[in-house]
Amino acid sequence: MPGLFVVFEGGDSVGKSTQVALLSDWLDGRGVRHLSTRQPGGTPIGAELRRLVLDPSYGDVSPRAEAMMYAADKAQHVHELIAPALARGEVVVSDRYVLSMIAYQGAGRELAMNDIAFLGWWAVGGLRPDLTVLLDADPDAAVAAIEDKDRLEQAGLDLHHRARSFFLEQAQSDPAHFLVLNARGSRESIAAAIRDRVEPLLP
Amino acid sequence: MPGLFVVFEGGDSVGKSTQVALLSDWLDGRGVRHLSTRQPGGTPIGAELRRLVLDPSYGDVSPRAEAMMYAADKAQHVHELIAPALARGEVVVSDRYVLSMIAYQGAGRELAMNDIAFLGWWAVGGLRPDLTVLLDADPDAAVAAIEDKDRLEQAGLDLHHRARSFFLEQAQSDPAHFLVLNARGSRESIAAAIRDRVEPLLP
Repeated sequence: MPGLFVVFEGGDSVGKSTQVALLSDWLDGRGVRHLSTRQPGGTPIGAELRRLVLDPSYGDVSPRAEAMMYAADKAQHVHELIAPALARGEVVVSDRYVLSMIAYQGAGRELAMNDIAFLGWWAVGGLRPDLTVLLDADPDAAVAAIEDKDRLEQAGLDLHHRARSFFLEQAQSDPAHFLVLNARGSRESIAAAIRDRVEPLLP
Repeated sequence: MPGLFVVFEGGDSVGKSTQVALLSDWLDGRGVRHLSTRQPGGTPIGAELRRLVLDPSYGDVSPRAEAMMYAADKAQHVHELIAPALARGEVVVSDRYVLSMIAYQGAGRELAMNDIAFLGWWAVGGLRPDLTVLLDADPDAAVAAIEDKDRLEQAGLDLHHRARSFFLEQAQSDPAHFLVLNARGSRESIAAAIRDRVEPLLP
């Protein structure tokens, strides 16, 4: 594909959407054609799938059905938006991609992580990002302010720790395609580090 | 699982729903607790997924997204209806199941049949039917009356031939779990053959 595919991954509230917006502004300023998007829900059918998964009126959605619906969202997102933009030579910036699916569907559920990885990468036809920016933060810090943790919150925290470990392992195993940044750094220093890494990759 | 899981497979218009209804009536008459259901669309969320796949306003749904959405329907169907009924010791009769997904998503598309088989069986957690009744018919006979076939119809016919071959191969490879019947037989003779095969399996 002639374009450049940049993905942001990391936990909740680490500043991914802020950095996507800053990178997008910078690309605008340079006159680089680009598409900023997000998963899940980046297409009309993806938004419907996300709505179905989250709608409590459907009762108990099975973990396997949920994983399949998130995978369907990814499949359609690549087919409808990401692959055509890359084929036109554009820069595509996505807030979350397959690794988030593996981290949150596979690390926290009874489902095998290898199976979720197969589903996720199959859904996108094996399309790998050219660069994944991992905004890394300790989940403990985010919830340190909350004092009255119940068991459910503790389970959620464990999930976020497992997801963080998974992201870091992926980055360590493929440093040529990852940029790991401390999400607690300043907004501007993070944006500058991202620009430095992206600039030589521009189409 | 203490119940009995019976699935009907075969092409379109071979009489599956008629035979499901006749088997259901017979089970009623014997006072056997049972659930008759169908795929896709046997649950509220499954019906929504089916609606999304078929709704032309979503434009070009990718084959991978479509396969994932049919797999999600299966996952929820087993989770919400089939597995609980089997656990209660009931007979479950389903009009289509995983083999239809493999036959129609895998045989007719650019997608690899082995991949679709993995998705389908993974979605249902590996739950295999105790008996699959294959109502077999030559697709040519069904469309023989149509004279002015265009290329699209021919492609559709090829798909139905490949699906038929796939169903027959599956039945031949596992005769202990299949009953293959000529769908052109009389309604009553087919129903009798099904009852003869099901009766000794009843819980």
